[in-house]
Amino acid sequence: MSTLDTSSTGLQALLSPRTVRSTVLPVVRQQVSALEPTLARICSYHLGFIDEHGDPTGAGSGKLTRAALMTAAAEGVGLRPEDVQSQAAALELLHNSTLIHDDIIDADELRRGRPAAWKVFGASLAILAGDALQALSLQVVVDDPGPGRAEISSAFAEALRLVLAGQSRELTVRLGPGAGIAEYDRIVEEKTSALLECALVTPALRAGKPEHVLAALRGAGRHLGLAFQISNDVEDIWGDPAVTGKPVRGDIGRRNPSFPVLAALSADSPVSERLRELWHGDGTAAAHLQEMADLTEEAGGRHTAEKLSRGHLGSALEHLGRAELSPAASAELTALFDRIVNRTA
Amino acid sequence: MSTLDTSSTGLQALLSPRTVRSTVLPVVRQQVSALEPTLARICSYHLGFIDEHGDPTGAGSGKLTRAALMTAAAEGVGLRPEDVQSQAAALELLHNSTLIHDDIIDADELRRGRPAAWKVFGASLAILAGDALQALSLQVVVDDPGPGRAEISSAFAEALRLVLAGQSRELTVRLGPGAGIAEYDRIVEEKTSALLECALVTPALRAGKPEHVLAALRGAGRHLGLAFQISNDVEDIWGDPAVTGKPVRGDIGRRNPSFPVLAALSADSPVSERLRELWHGDGTAAAHLQEMADLTEEAGGRHTAEKLSRGHLGSALEHLGRAELSPAASAELTALFDRIVNRTA
Repeated sequence: MSTLDTSSTGLQALLSPRTVRSTVLPVVRQQVSALEPTLARICSYHLGFIDEHGDPTGAGSGKLTRAALMTAAAEGVGLRPEDVQSQAAALELLHNSTLIHDDIIDADELRRGRPAAWKVFGASLAILAGDALQALSLQVVVDDPGPGRAEISSAFAEALRLVLAGQSRELTVRLGPGAGIAEYDRIVEEKTSALLECALVTPALRAGKPEHVLAALRGAGRHLGLAFQISNDVEDIWGDPAVTGKPVRGDIGRRNPSFPVLAALSADSPVSERLRELWHGDGTAAAHLQEMADLTEEAGGRHTAEKLSRGHLGSALEHLGRAELSPAASAELTALFDRIVNRTA
Repeated sequence: MSTLDTSSTGLQALLSPRTVRSTVLPVVRQQVSALEPTLARICSYHLGFIDEHGDPTGAGSGKLTRAALMTAAAEGVGLRPEDVQSQAAALELLHNSTLIHDDIIDADELRRGRPAAWKVFGASLAILAGDALQALSLQVVVDDPGPGRAEISSAFAEALRLVLAGQSRELTVRLGPGAGIAEYDRIVEEKTSALLECALVTPALRAGKPEHVLAALRGAGRHLGLAFQISNDVEDIWGDPAVTGKPVRGDIGRRNPSFPVLAALSADSPVSERLRELWHGDGTAAAHLQEMADLTEEAGGRHTAEKLSRGHLGSALEHLGRAELSPAASAELTALFDRIVNRTA
C-alpha cells in the first residue's frame, strides 16, 4: 500500500477534517432540515444527524471526502473555504442522494454500519428522499449567485448524469475477462470519478481558471476515482467490515464489477478457470465467496489491483502537479488523496 | 362540467397540439437518446417512442400539457415557441421523471395504457431512469444560455422540490375529514400545481416580466392544478379506464387523498359514517371500492368536487386575465385550461 509520509512535509494543515466539518456540515444540516418534514427526517437519518427514532446523534456521518477535496482545491486557487461552502455542501448532498438510491437498488441493508434508509423508512419514501437530496443539491448550486454560477451548475448536472450512467452500466453490463477491464474503467470514471472531478474543478471554475488548469484537475479526479474504487474493491473482498461499515464481499456476492476478480479472470490459468465457473454460477454462500476470494488472490488479482491502484494514485498526483495550485494546498491535497485511497482518513 | 365554448371565439389557434408536438418532441427525443443506452431505452419506452422490445412506435406518448402551456404562455409575453423550446422539453422530462418514480412507489402497473417502466425493466433500473430524466431536465435548463437562465433554473429546481414534498406528504399524511381538505390543497399545490406554475412562469422569466405578471401566472397555475387534480380524482372513481389509461379506483384502493371522498367524509351524515368505516378499513376488493364510490356520491362528494373544480378553473382564468398576455394567447390558454381540467384534449 502506498502510504505517503505526510508527517515529515512540514505542512501545517490548512484544513483539518474538523475544519471542513465545521464549515460544511452546518450548511448540509440547514438545507436538509428545510425539506418537507418526512423527507428531512429520512435525509437527516441517512446523513447521521439523527437516529431511527428521530433523536439527535450529536454527529454527522460520512467523511465529507468530496467537501474536503473541494475546500482544499479552493485554497489552491486562492479562494477561501467560504467561497465554495454552498457548493461543497451541495456536492455532499448529491453524493448522498446517489447512496440512498444505490442502497435500494443493491438491496444493501447496511450503510456506514447502520440500517440503510430504505430498511428504516421503506423503499417508497427512500426513493423520494434520494430524489429530494438530488434536487436540493442542484437547487443550492443554481441559487448561489457567486462567480461561475452557470459553469458550476453545468458541472454538477454533468457529474450527476455521469454517475447515473455509470450505475446503469454497472447493473447491465456482464463483465468478462479482457474487454471487461476497459468497461470497468469507464464505469468507475462515471460513477466514482465524476463527483471527485466536480469537487476539484468547481473552485477553479469559480476562480475563472484557464482550461489547462481545469483539465489537470479533471485528470487528477479521474485517476483518484480509479485508485479509490480499485482499492475499495480490494477492501470489499479482504477488508474489515468494521472499517467499511458494509457486509464483506457484497460486490462479489452480487457479481458487481470487481477489479481484483476481473484481473484474476484475465490471468488465463487453471485457477482463473475455476474462478470463472464460480463467478458465472450463482453461489453466494460464505464458503463460495471465500473460495472466490482465495482463487482471486491465488491468480494474482489482489496483487494486480493493489499495484494498479497505486499507479492511478501516482497519475492523480501527476495531474495535480500541473494544476498550478499553491504549494500548501498541493501538499494538503496530496495527503487527502492518499487518505482517500488508503482509507486512513 | 364546465365546457367552455371555444368554437365560437373566432380564435385562430396559434398552437395546435400538433405544433407543440413538432417543436418539443424532437428535443425530448434527442436529449433522451443521448443518455447511457440502457437509461435511454427505458426513458424512450416510458415516453412512448419505442415499445418494450425496443421497436419504434412512430409516436410519442403523453399530451405534452406542460409544454403546450409553456409554449402558449411564451406567445403571450411576445416570445416565439423556439425561445422556450428547451425549457418546454425540460419540463416534460421533469414531469416524466416524477411519473417513473411515482409508478414504482404506488406499485402502479399501468401508465398510459401500457405496462409501467418498472414492470418492464425492473424497479432498480427504473429508479435510475427516473433519476436520469430528473438530472437531464435540470441539465437542459442550466445549460441553456438565453436570458433569464438563472431565474428559470431556480424555478425548475424549486418546482421539483415542491413536487417531491407533495409526494412525500401524500404518502405519509393520514387525511381525515375537516382538516384533511386544507392538507389536500397543500399537497396538490405542491405535487400538481408546481409544474403548471413553472410552465406558465418560465416564458415570463425569459421575457423579464415584472413581479405582478409572475404572480398572476403563478396564481393561474396554482388554481389550474387544483381544478385538474380534483377533476382527476373524480375520474379515478367514476371515469373510463380507457380514457385515463389507469385501472379504475386506484386512488381510493390505496386510500390516497381523494377530494370527493374527503368532501363526502366531511358531510357528517350516516352515509358518511359508513364511508368513514370503509375508508379506515383495509378492503380493496372491487365490491368495496364500488360501495365507497356509491357512498361518496350519495354523501354529495362527487357534486362538491365537480363544483369546486369548476370554481378553481374560474379562479385560474381570473388570474390569467391579470397576466397582461396578448389576447390571442389568453384565448389559447383559456381553451387549454379547459381541455386540461375536462380531459377533452
